[in-house]
Amino acid sequence: MNCVFCAIVARTAEASIVHEDEHTLAFMDIRPFTPGHLLVVPKRHASGLAQLDPEDGRRVFAVGQRLAAALRDNGTDLTGLPTDGPCADGVNLFLADGAVAGQEVFHVHLHVIPRTAGDGFGLRGRPTMPRRPDLDYLAGAIRRRLG
Amino acid sequence: MNCVFCAIVARTAEASIVHEDEHTLAFMDIRPFTPGHLLVVPKRHASGLAQLDPEDGRRVFAVGQRLAAALRDNGTDLTGLPTDGPCADGVNLFLADGAVAGQEVFHVHLHVIPRTAGDGFGLRGRPTMPRRPDLDYLAGAIRRRLG
Repeated sequence: MNCVFCAIVARTAEASIVHEDEHTLAFMDIRPFTPGHLLVVPKRHASGLAQLDPEDGRRVFAVGQRLAAALRDNGTDLTGLPTDGPCADGVNLFLADGAVAGQEVFHVHLHVIPRTAGDGFGLRGRPTMPRRPDLDYLAGAIRRRLG
Repeated sequence: MNCVFCAIVARTAEASIVHEDEHTLAFMDIRPFTPGHLLVVPKRHASGLAQLDPEDGRRVFAVGQRLAAALRDNGTDLTGLPTDGPCADGVNLFLADGAVAGQEVFHVHLHVIPRTAGDGFGLRGRPTMPRRPDLDYLAGAIRRRLG
């Protein structure tokens, strides 16, 4: 196995770590979209959501929620200097499952991305406005798969 | 309170529902980025991650993981017709916390977005490549906030 996130968990690869517990690790993304961009990973290797222990998924999300709170905390900005306002005015959580979805490292990771006005980050795409019968039809197909 | 997702939970507003349990509800996004785009919400109102019961957060993520599996399932495509391949080749999970992060409905919701090649959806932004000392400095600031 040649997984960079497993190597970070094992401390054989470098990372700037912000949180560790029995099941998860969180560290700085080395290619951040915004300053403070973090990744949360389960320590147990899982290449994608289909391989991920649901309990590990829950833990990863819970850590993401705590990190989001820290990023939006008042008192200091992300350079560590005192400030009157929050350092981040919002946060995005993002997870890519599958190459076509933008996944590049095949060890599940949740992005936690601090947001400020004009930071240039966002979603790309054109939402459509389907008719209700079409939505109901798709919903039925998905419900059948859920079993 | 005038919350459209609370109204959907209460069944006083229309929705195409795919999953319901004691704590969560999942339904079709009415402005989908791709066909099959779903939202998962906690039934208990929480305007943002700071107001969200962490246990509800875990439940929302777990449902998102199950929905992702259903969207990637083999056997039928999203029109309900038999097919040899998976309907979605990947999935994105996305959550916007705060107006600056793109949040439009102030009741926490996790987007579950099925992906196929050339669907036009993705992230917008320019990743940077900070030096390790800068990442370490930010990591230290975030660790201090986590306490």
